[in-house]
Amino acid sequence: MTEHTISAYEAELRHLAGKIAEMGGLAEQLVADSVQALVRMDTALAQRVVFEDRRLDQMQRDIEEASILVIAKRQPMAMDLREIVGFMRIANDLERVGDLAKNIGKRVVAINSSIVQKKLMVGVEHLAEIALEQLKHVLDAYANRNEALARQVRERDDEIDALYTSLFRELLTYMMEDPRNIGQCTHLLFCAKNIERIGDHATNIAETVHYAVTGSMFETERPKADLTSEQAIALPG
Amino acid sequence: MTEHTISAYEAELRHLAGKIAEMGGLAEQLVADSVQALVRMDTALAQRVVFEDRRLDQMQRDIEEASILVIAKRQPMAMDLREIVGFMRIANDLERVGDLAKNIGKRVVAINSSIVQKKLMVGVEHLAEIALEQLKHVLDAYANRNEALARQVRERDDEIDALYTSLFRELLTYMMEDPRNIGQCTHLLFCAKNIERIGDHATNIAETVHYAVTGSMFETERPKADLTSEQAIALPG
Repeated sequence: MTEHTISAYEAELRHLAGKIAEMGGLAEQLVADSVQALVRMDTALAQRVVFEDRRLDQMQRDIEEASILVIAKRQPMAMDLREIVGFMRIANDLERVGDLAKNIGKRVVAINSSIVQKKLMVGVEHLAEIALEQLKHVLDAYANRNEALARQVRERDDEIDALYTSLFRELLTYMMEDPRNIGQCTHLLFCAKNIERIGDHATNIAETVHYAVTGSMFETERPKADLTSEQAIALPG
Repeated sequence: MTEHTISAYEAELRHLAGKIAEMGGLAEQLVADSVQALVRMDTALAQRVVFEDRRLDQMQRDIEEASILVIAKRQPMAMDLREIVGFMRIANDLERVGDLAKNIGKRVVAINSSIVQKKLMVGVEHLAEIALEQLKHVLDAYANRNEALARQVRERDDEIDALYTSLFRELLTYMMEDPRNIGQCTHLLFCAKNIERIGDHATNIAETVHYAVTGSMFETERPKADLTSEQAIALPG
């Protein structure tokens, strides 16, 4: 390979890495905006999230296409191949994070017709803060090839799962207390589930960072998970 | 390229297509089993679904890895490249279908402690029948490169979305009527959402079939969607 070819190839990889960073920034923004829209019941902001999510979809397609062309054209060696596979996997996770933010945005538009009690929102907001932190940290870990930070993100997913489980029970209790809460609480349950899944995607990205850096998967099964789907619901009343 | 090389390449593509068919069969089975487990409250079957889902995860990783190696090694031309990208996309969708079936399985284990009213289950079962038909049809469409059948699957997704929306309202009504239904109905709401999402993945696969056959995306935006996240909930009482 000539010097010229090598640097064109490197430029392609750098371009793709830049696209991932851009996608990561947009995904973070959409998650933050969707939660702000929910907490403030800001339907205009919610609608903007729904609209902007299309950009993430398009970026994911572009990154997938460009990655495959690089593989076909350059026949990369193992380490570069892992990096390019990483582009595709992370773009896929970020696209799904965008879908989840979009879904929260749609629910804000739905909930809007009623007045939401502040107390119902506190737990959702707290869950979202942690999920968003996880997303920021894992994107930092990716940008800096920081395997230790990726590992921390993966380990902290337990915290999100535990919070989600407790929030799930809390929302169900409000529904039992007053059937007029059922509609709102159901939307909030789905929003909370969406946020918990954003955390799962942060964990997936952590696994991709580990794979791109080390060439192997994490040594142990990831600690799991959302317990609400595994446990019977014991409710007062 | 020699005759020998061409046929080794073709053998690789056929091997991957066979793996996709195998994955499709397993994904169908897990969806069917998870719904049977739900309808009959068969926790042993539900646990088997949760366990078997790991095979789908492994198959997806294997297909992704093998596809990328084929691209790097063979530098395929446009038509073959589309087929290989199709392998990766469909494996990804089938893996997610498996996750959704697994989630239904986990909820069966959770619901088990209570006696579920038959009437709550009818709508979920009907929704699942259609989603499973969609999955079967789109896998047929893929196996036979049947673009018209893929288009039908995509158009029928509306039916699933409409059914889901009506089921969502119905389950909320039962919750309003009797708070003792809230726990069960919440699990069923999530099961119904999982089934609706299985339908979405069938639609994604339909889009991949169209892309693999024609080289382009469907000409119009896909008709959307689950309306429960977009509409305010108007409930009796």
